[in-house]
Amino acid sequence: MKKLACLTLAAGLFAALPASAQTFAKAEDAIKYRQGAFNVIGSHFGPLGAMATGKMPYNARSAAANAEVVAYMARLPFAGFIPGSDKGQTRAKAEIWKDNAKFKAGAEKFQAEAAKLNTAAKSGDLNQLKAAFADAAQTCKSCHDNFRSK
Amino acid sequence: MKKLACLTLAAGLFAALPASAQTFAKAEDAIKYRQGAFNVIGSHFGPLGAMATGKMPYNARSAAANAEVVAYMARLPFAGFIPGSDKGQTRAKAEIWKDNAKFKAGAEKFQAEAAKLNTAAKSGDLNQLKAAFADAAQTCKSCHDNFRSK
Repeated sequence: MKKLACLTLAAGLFAALPASAQTFAKAEDAIKYRQGAFNVIGSHFGPLGAMATGKMPYNARSAAANAEVVAYMARLPFAGFIPGSDKGQTRAKAEIWKDNAKFKAGAEKFQAEAAKLNTAAKSGDLNQLKAAFADAAQTCKSCHDNFRSK
Repeated sequence: MKKLACLTLAAGLFAALPASAQTFAKAEDAIKYRQGAFNVIGSHFGPLGAMATGKMPYNARSAAANAEVVAYMARLPFAGFIPGSDKGQTRAKAEIWKDNAKFKAGAEKFQAEAAKLNTAAKSGDLNQLKAAFADAAQTCKSCHDNFRSK
């Protein structure tokens, strides 16, 4: 029943999380899960930033596809912040659990901006993409500054 | 233009891949991306197996949520198998690129079974879930046996 206890805790951390209900037998599994999810998000977020800043030619179809993945996956990694998973191969600060309301609000802000980024990317308008990317990137930075060790 | 060349190669590897168009500056980035994506897939696939085999109580809502993530993400990791990314922290065998048609067929089979698993999970019928899980798990095993080092 230990797995189910972890699951219940993880699911309870974010009310907005659907019953995706992964089970993490060990903190290490939860850490790898959230790092994997963030890596995928970052890999799709990167090209959007490159297009928004002119480092890569704007391609509306590619932008839309990348933003869609970011928006879909934005809800996933936070289930990996199970209690006790500040120990191990992670830069997660203890503040995540000490001030969980603030962390949760940051996650929800990110999810909201990711959804707006998706809408902006689908519009095919580079200026909309630029604005939405900047807003979304700010939510990444804010949580990293507060909750991730350097 | 090196990034764009990688991107074009990666996108060309799977015709079924949408224009998600990540760019991988280094093979290491592509490796981490695909490992991250597979980790997330596996973390959501695990509870489905536990339910299918009776190791965890069947919960239709949780099963549907997990299968949905698996089905969505099934198309993602394969873009990370860019040429040259058999070197580094990876168990990917050179056969992936030597017999790419077979690898591609295996990936497409997995994607098709993941879609069926999603449908089965949404049905709310445990017996359908059991059958679809077994079929999907076989596609994982088949590619791991052929294309992943032990």
